[in-house]
Amino acid sequence: MKKLRRSARLVDMTQHLLARPHKLIPLTFFAEQYGAAKSSISEDLSIIKELFESEGVGLLRTVAGAAGGVKYIPLTNTEDAQAGMERLCRTLESSGRLLPGGYLYMADLLGDPEVLSEIGKVFATVFAESEADYVMTVETKGIPLAYATAYYLNIPVVIVRRYSKVTDGSVVSINYVSGSSKRIQTMSLARRSLPENSKVLIVDDFMKAGGTARGMMDLLEEFKAEVVGVGVFMETANVEERLVDDYVSLLRVTEVDVRDKEIRLELGNYFKNKE
Amino acid sequence: MKKLRRSARLVDMTQHLLARPHKLIPLTFFAEQYGAAKSSISEDLSIIKELFESEGVGLLRTVAGAAGGVKYIPLTNTEDAQAGMERLCRTLESSGRLLPGGYLYMADLLGDPEVLSEIGKVFATVFAESEADYVMTVETKGIPLAYATAYYLNIPVVIVRRYSKVTDGSVVSINYVSGSSKRIQTMSLARRSLPENSKVLIVDDFMKAGGTARGMMDLLEEFKAEVVGVGVFMETANVEERLVDDYVSLLRVTEVDVRDKEIRLELGNYFKNKE
Repeated sequence: MKKLRRSARLVDMTQHLLARPHKLIPLTFFAEQYGAAKSSISEDLSIIKELFESEGVGLLRTVAGAAGGVKYIPLTNTEDAQAGMERLCRTLESSGRLLPGGYLYMADLLGDPEVLSEIGKVFATVFAESEADYVMTVETKGIPLAYATAYYLNIPVVIVRRYSKVTDGSVVSINYVSGSSKRIQTMSLARRSLPENSKVLIVDDFMKAGGTARGMMDLLEEFKAEVVGVGVFMETANVEERLVDDYVSLLRVTEVDVRDKEIRLELGNYFKNKE
Repeated sequence: MKKLRRSARLVDMTQHLLARPHKLIPLTFFAEQYGAAKSSISEDLSIIKELFESEGVGLLRTVAGAAGGVKYIPLTNTEDAQAGMERLCRTLESSGRLLPGGYLYMADLLGDPEVLSEIGKVFATVFAESEADYVMTVETKGIPLAYATAYYLNIPVVIVRRYSKVTDGSVVSINYVSGSSKRIQTMSLARRSLPENSKVLIVDDFMKAGGTARGMMDLLEEFKAEVVGVGVFMETANVEERLVDDYVSLLRVTEVDVRDKEIRLELGNYFKNKE
């Protein structure tokens, strides 16, 4: 690469870091790339670091030593996260979203890349230190959230299927009891999609009694995997018996009035624990 | 916002633009944000523009006039795209990927955020001028590709379901004939998920005879939508009767030898048309 002026170098380093979250980049990489001294690269990084922190983009973490370098950790600060989730609460409470049966229509929000990026970055903030190797979810609605989270953690996604397909190869299946409807259901995961002893972060869009999350945790035992976190976008309050103890929710449904078609939401336990 | 030095301003403008593909940002926004003269902002933008182009990040398009501004268009240049897709061909050809029935295992690749971003950006390049309002796909395997594409086009995703759910509200369903298996299947889309007269880009992971894509096109007629493009990650060669004429493929399967468990791939029609 030809030698760049500092201004162009800053632009290139910024785009390079943003495209590779949680990845350690040796300072020598940048030094060689730009034919610049390590000390100049360090100065550039401190400019980027300061801006990323002041603008709520995330952290630049410097790792010292021979195997060292710099890592971009995407982080949303708590006030921004809270403001964003409050805004989603108000949007979801707006009329016409409550469907027959008390279900909430949110496919439009979970189809919007900007909203997904926002939620995914909040999950990536919550679980930034989880050391997860994989994000896991169950088809279908959790998939976009799992990918948005995985993007910012820069780790792969594995998708548990409710209906196993021939294109998965050999699968491990379990039966589980849906916590709220008490029905017996099946979920399965391709054997080759998850190496044994992996650390797994479970992400899903919705949790009522937690039967689905419990099922995923049981399935993970078959893979000798360690569950390092459970994140749900939305949980419901007033659940008699929760099948999962340790989870993070971003939003909580507190009231569903099917007759008047009204729904009330508040911030989830992630923000309550912060107060 | 406090006045930033040029170096910090360049870092912030870069991250701001990268996070908002295809969105017009008025120069006055940056000028006010940083308390800087428009002429300084223009100079900064030309530094970013030059770097983005030389490094294959994309284009910065300047729109003149009162309603003008600058827009970041993510673009992968053809050589990079071709090299990336060639690499995927070789990975997919490696042994152990061919499953019983001649299916190809690729869940690991489509679970990797870096691979997905690469493919999504290529689709966003192909359809950069399509003026699509929505990306549409059918559950399940096309979903991550659709989101990766939608991220770079900065438009929402709508997901067609094979099994309609009560959480979708009222849906439009059609029956269609799978082109290869000749079975009659159903697909449905929530009425409220797509406004009438939308421009839609169809994205899917795999196309054989094109029955599923044809089904989506028929379904879109019910929404008075215009199909502005069809992109498939992988198509199969040697199809007797293709149900869709106009589509872009990135990869093509040319040979499947089930007995010897071997598969051969080449670049898809997007690259052939470029030659």
